[in-house]
Amino acid sequence: MNTSMIRYILGNILKLQALFLVLPLITALVYGEDTFTAYVIIAFSCLVLGFMMTLRKPEDHVFYLKEGCVATALSWIVLSISGAFPFVLTGEIPHFIDALFETASGFTTTGSSILSDVEALSRSSLMWRDFTHWVGGMGVLVFLLAVIPMSGGSNINLMKAESPGPSVGKLVPKIRSTARILYMIYIGLGILMFLLLICGKMPVFDALTTVFGTAGTGGFGIKNDSIASYSPYIQWVITIFMLLFGVNFNAYYLILFRNAKKAFKIEEVRWYFTIILLSVFVIFTDLMQFYPTLGDAVRDSFFQVASIITTTGFATADFNLWSATSKSTLVLLMFIGACAGSTGGGLKVSRLIILIKTIFKELTSYTHPKSIVKIKMDDKPIEHEVVRSANVYFITYMIIFVVSVFCLTFENIDLISVFTAVAATFNNIGPGLEMVGPTANFGHFSDFSKLVMIFDMLAGRLELFPLLMLFHPEIWRDTIKRKLK
Amino acid sequence: MNTSMIRYILGNILKLQALFLVLPLITALVYGEDTFTAYVIIAFSCLVLGFMMTLRKPEDHVFYLKEGCVATALSWIVLSISGAFPFVLTGEIPHFIDALFETASGFTTTGSSILSDVEALSRSSLMWRDFTHWVGGMGVLVFLLAVIPMSGGSNINLMKAESPGPSVGKLVPKIRSTARILYMIYIGLGILMFLLLICGKMPVFDALTTVFGTAGTGGFGIKNDSIASYSPYIQWVITIFMLLFGVNFNAYYLILFRNAKKAFKIEEVRWYFTIILLSVFVIFTDLMQFYPTLGDAVRDSFFQVASIITTTGFATADFNLWSATSKSTLVLLMFIGACAGSTGGGLKVSRLIILIKTIFKELTSYTHPKSIVKIKMDDKPIEHEVVRSANVYFITYMIIFVVSVFCLTFENIDLISVFTAVAATFNNIGPGLEMVGPTANFGHFSDFSKLVMIFDMLAGRLELFPLLMLFHPEIWRDTIKRKLK
Repeated sequence: MNTSMIRYILGNILKLQALFLVLPLITALVYGEDTFTAYVIIAFSCLVLGFMMTLRKPEDHVFYLKEGCVATALSWIVLSISGAFPFVLTGEIPHFIDALFETASGFTTTGSSILSDVEALSRSSLMWRDFTHWVGGMGVLVFLLAVIPMSGGSNINLMKAESPGPSVGKLVPKIRSTARILYMIYIGLGILMFLLLICGKMPVFDALTTVFGTAGTGGFGIKNDSIASYSPYIQWVITIFMLLFGVNFNAYYLILFRNAKKAFKIEEVRWYFTIILLSVFVIFTDLMQFYPTLGDAVRDSFFQVASIITTTGFATADFNLWSATSKSTLVLLMFIGACAGSTGGGLKVSRLIILIKTIFKELTSYTHPKSIVKIKMDDKPIEHEVVRSANVYFITYMIIFVVSVFCLTFENIDLISVFTAVAATFNNIGPGLEMVGPTANFGHFSDFSKLVMIFDMLAGRLELFPLLMLFHPEIWRDTIKRKLK
Repeated sequence: MNTSMIRYILGNILKLQALFLVLPLITALVYGEDTFTAYVIIAFSCLVLGFMMTLRKPEDHVFYLKEGCVATALSWIVLSISGAFPFVLTGEIPHFIDALFETASGFTTTGSSILSDVEALSRSSLMWRDFTHWVGGMGVLVFLLAVIPMSGGSNINLMKAESPGPSVGKLVPKIRSTARILYMIYIGLGILMFLLLICGKMPVFDALTTVFGTAGTGGFGIKNDSIASYSPYIQWVITIFMLLFGVNFNAYYLILFRNAKKAFKIEEVRWYFTIILLSVFVIFTDLMQFYPTLGDAVRDSFFQVASIITTTGFATADFNLWSATSKSTLVLLMFIGACAGSTGGGLKVSRLIILIKTIFKELTSYTHPKSIVKIKMDDKPIEHEVVRSANVYFITYMIIFVVSVFCLTFENIDLISVFTAVAATFNNIGPGLEMVGPTANFGHFSDFSKLVMIFDMLAGRLELFPLLMLFHPEIWRDTIKRKLK
């Protein structure tokens, strides 16, 4: 284990965290809030600690996949812990585990909250909450790769560990350029959305936080009723941008720099929109009788489907009151998730396509036992390795899911609340059903359950294995051995 | 497709069905019930139809895996349909879909019932219900192989399609001898259990039906409160035999004919008992405060754990009233299921071991990307093919599960009922929770939902792929092409 390299990365992450904290700090200044001191103290502490950790540059730059995983997992844990302190220091979330839950929920773009009254928060803390979504959406290590020159060709291992989806594509040969292009698209789409919201007469503060929450597919609202009190125009803008941020960013790269036609032919993107339209249809036909106008029914169905499949988690309606069919459609979408290479969570559409194609391949192997069929995607055969890893991912995913549900049953609350609480955190969505529905929150859980869900949020965002690597005995054996040398 | 061979097998299955129907027929005679006529009519019809179908022997004996799958799937469908008629004809279950549900539930050893008052049934029909469990437990094609000489070396394809578990082991080189040994063990254990029940002063009729229900891990009770009103001694006997019938039959073969020591070293069997003891411990500590004596708490915990993990489904307590932790432990056990090569359903312990080992292998591939690790079981490396097929099985299983749950949500009942109704039928258990709990039944579902659950029961018993093969377009194209020739 290259521990000095990991230390160096973590130091840089802390310096970045100090930089991130400048935004709520400015917000506090602008609105003259006394949360200012808390943000200054934490930002300064991060900076000092970060500098201390990066003083000595690592001699050895060799960096394998396991180090990439460990560095990524630790980075996200460091971000969540250091980002939680402001909430504790301002006294807005005095209990540390609660603050950690809120921050981890922010960075992992989950959007599950322990707060019952969001509007009681200071503007600076509201800004910080939503800004963590924006940082977590595209990935902080991708950001690190984009801004800090790192030597060695093993950067791909960092990106691999942080990027969502079954396979990591470099858009351009250089990792650093890829990271920059991704961030350009991310920022560009965000600015466009901001302008459209401003056109809808949304206040600047609201628009900025909503853009952060949407772009990162996070879902922290700044109002207790999430998005419900905004105008239909604003709701439609948010719906469309949630969907856009759930699309594989490769598509935007193709549209901007290559062949736009190719972008519309990406199999995953086609499936993604097909699933969305089907779900909207099911929910709309189920709901329309309860709405005064068809327009309202369409808007609410579209908003909720977009919010859940992209794993954002905003709400305009209390879908906990909907029928069993609508609710189970939403629960299904929770697991499907957005496209790979987007900012969304869940299993990812492309992984699901691979899984379904695997089943068909199996059936064909019964009729033609000797034939060797390769699974294709976008008309190209997929590497056996990718298929295998999608299968293993699914198994690991289900086992973590089941174990988490079991851990939460000690709460002795109804099983639907438990099941959807895990589904909502593990898939980085936000609200679930019943006791964790859109009008409820996660504050009533015990510390143990909250820690389980914090683990789930991180595991979901980092696609399981980087986080699980921390528990691999070999990693520790290796590190201790090196220290003893 | 070798359709004439499939016709020949189906004909033999019908002849067998006529033979099976003799038992309820005799019961009707003994108790002087007027259901006699109904059973005679159906038995005779099956016999005539069976003879007609087997008049012309097939010329071509070549029989591939796909034919094995189709023959197996159709055999079970034919058994369920023909076995449902007596219930309709006697007027005890007048609606055909209900009768089909009950019979499919019987043959697939599920034990889910649409009846609210079991005790209203005639003795002959009670006998028939439980006898279908016994027939379905070991598998009717295995029986066919044991009693009817079939030429050709491709019989393994029939056994492969019907036997539960990730890999099919022939105990001895000859399929026919293997089938006979399996049935010998099956009958032997059954007789032992019968004698022990009689020692506990259980009436002969009750003992016989209970043995059938236990041996097949079925779970149809002949009383409305299932097993609750029998003595503690009888409950313990049933507990022990449920557990024994959930053990991989290879273990008994080893004990009887080879090395008994080896039997106790089978990894799957060790895991099976470990899971059982852990679950009993969890449920016992959770329940003991509510029971007058610790003995009662131990007995009820043990009984319910044994009943659910072996997918039998008998009940001595209304576990729907237990705490969330106990309930979710039981739901977990529903999915784990019994050992491969037993009469139980579910995912099977050995498949779960393979899945968990796959995850560890994946983690190791992160630390040693170039090493090739083989997954081991019983200290022997497992074929790549077996691992892959366990992975695909799990994926297919989950997808069928999710789709079934979705289909059942149109009932507009609570999601726990829907979820556990599918879990209980797909894993061939019997009762679920809430509206399908141990004191409730499946009668309130719509015909559509019942058909979905009939599919699930058959898919679960036949381990998915044989049944799915019926929906493979190639099978039909092939058959039609042959007919046109």
